[in-house]
Amino acid sequence: MMSEKLHLHLESSRKRSALFHLTEEKWAAAAKRHKPLAKNVRVTVGWDGDILDDALRTADVMINSSPPRENLRERAPRLKWIQTTGAGVDQLSPFDWLPEDITLTNNSGAHGAKAEDSCTMSLLMLNAGLPEVLTNQRERRWQPIFSTPIEGKTAVVIGFGDLGQAAGRAAKKLDMELIAVTRSGKHTRPADVTYPVSRIDRALPKADFVIVTTPLTADTRGLISRERLGLLKRGAGLVNIGRAPVVDYAALTVKLVSGDMGGAVLDVFDQEPLPADSPLWTTPNLVIMPHISCDDPRYIDQLLDTWFMNLERFMKGKALRNIVDRRLGY
Amino acid sequence: MMSEKLHLHLESSRKRSALFHLTEEKWAAAAKRHKPLAKNVRVTVGWDGDILDDALRTADVMINSSPPRENLRERAPRLKWIQTTGAGVDQLSPFDWLPEDITLTNNSGAHGAKAEDSCTMSLLMLNAGLPEVLTNQRERRWQPIFSTPIEGKTAVVIGFGDLGQAAGRAAKKLDMELIAVTRSGKHTRPADVTYPVSRIDRALPKADFVIVTTPLTADTRGLISRERLGLLKRGAGLVNIGRAPVVDYAALTVKLVSGDMGGAVLDVFDQEPLPADSPLWTTPNLVIMPHISCDDPRYIDQLLDTWFMNLERFMKGKALRNIVDRRLGY
Repeated sequence: MMSEKLHLHLESSRKRSALFHLTEEKWAAAAKRHKPLAKNVRVTVGWDGDILDDALRTADVMINSSPPRENLRERAPRLKWIQTTGAGVDQLSPFDWLPEDITLTNNSGAHGAKAEDSCTMSLLMLNAGLPEVLTNQRERRWQPIFSTPIEGKTAVVIGFGDLGQAAGRAAKKLDMELIAVTRSGKHTRPADVTYPVSRIDRALPKADFVIVTTPLTADTRGLISRERLGLLKRGAGLVNIGRAPVVDYAALTVKLVSGDMGGAVLDVFDQEPLPADSPLWTTPNLVIMPHISCDDPRYIDQLLDTWFMNLERFMKGKALRNIVDRRLGY
Repeated sequence: MMSEKLHLHLESSRKRSALFHLTEEKWAAAAKRHKPLAKNVRVTVGWDGDILDDALRTADVMINSSPPRENLRERAPRLKWIQTTGAGVDQLSPFDWLPEDITLTNNSGAHGAKAEDSCTMSLLMLNAGLPEVLTNQRERRWQPIFSTPIEGKTAVVIGFGDLGQAAGRAAKKLDMELIAVTRSGKHTRPADVTYPVSRIDRALPKADFVIVTTPLTADTRGLISRERLGLLKRGAGLVNIGRAPVVDYAALTVKLVSGDMGGAVLDVFDQEPLPADSPLWTTPNLVIMPHISCDDPRYIDQLLDTWFMNLERFMKGKALRNIVDRRLGY
């Protein structure tokens, strides 16, 4: 145990959805759930930088969606650990701003149950031709589209971390064939087959539906290119719950309009909120999800619970969970 | 075995979707799958009544979505069995046109696998606020709606025949609590609890989501009335894959517009195709499915397979499966 209290600074932006706000109330509720640990913590709560520099002077730990990066060591001499509120840290990369002795942890794993529901839904929507049905509804057009049950069809999941495995559980719950595409190609449950990303071009033609779940890194940017979309079966569908720049949306749009692809469900976009004048809003056979597929309204409660579990490890000098690998970028 | 061939007349309407057409090709394929039985059958194929009266003169069996009802005994002196292509026979009720010695069978049970997929999808869509998300998409409005996972929430399934049990399997696959409402209230798997319809008012307030699957009969018409919709929790959702007149759509619309109900997915309408000027097309938080939730494109193949199984029973003098109860109306 430490002799003096650990200073934790919680920093939020009012520009983000209230779902992600680290409020005094959320902290108080979490501290109550983790009393023995919480008594070792002194907390400050900041908004859009209002008390940030003051807080950094003494903070040991910070929870933040977008940590300050300029002169961090100088401004925060005692800082040892930054916890991000999100799972993706692509917006913080490259990590040259991050002193070697500050540990960065992300919120990977918080999204599993919700992502599984979302992927189950999206797979069934794509199989039932819902993106086209919904396009027809916008145009008051009654046009029955009949489809066989989803059982036995093939899902190809790109990336098989927490989100990818949730997508995989969804496919298995629907009795689908499941191919995972990962960096190493090492077999991982519940996939039936795992391909290394170097052989992705062999996996894509087998897909009835592709689910993209990868973080955005130098390796994944543009991975699902126009050429690779061209490898898909006619009528195949695509879901993206990873990051937008992994998929060529312009090429995807062309294939949705032409009918080469049957439908898509996108949860992530280059610019969020998606601007009102984006042509994606009215692209046929495309469902626009406003970045909600993987987020539970209890998000911050769960983040703080996970953080407290890591705090216990931290205080005992054990390795933390969810450490971001600076080299891999996730 | 019979000494002479059985005359089967297949009658279709070109006004209906090709999915439901009893074509020579479909018959030939089915006859190949059931060779020993098929060699006892002589078949005629008619369209919109073109050879109907001729065929009826000698037909023993007829498969038809909408059998001729005027002077049937006189026109079809040998007719012993009518198989309908659909599951619902409400459009044929009352059954005073049907001679007592003609057996009417429906296609109940053909819809299970597809209905299970559709209900799984619709439950997840309602839980994720998709009807509202899709309304927002129509208006190019980015508005994140966050929801907790569906596990543990409660589905109330109205009617627990083939479609209802498929809906029930969907709810159970999603680890939901499942309440069935049936005529008798007798416990039926996989429901956790079964209520008789006389106590439906006790079941509805427990529902996060209601799935209506009942056939249309004198008892079910108007069952989900404005008053009963008023028993639902705020934000509850509704799916109808049964028959439109079971639910008061005008009252449902009011509750969707006011936000009292969170969303609805409707697959059945008073008039189908739904007319282009129907206000339902643009009702907020409402997904319009063009009567596709329970139909597999292999529909006629499956119908004929089921019919051949019944033919074997017929030829052996055994009781047929799927006999419509004239009194109950399904």
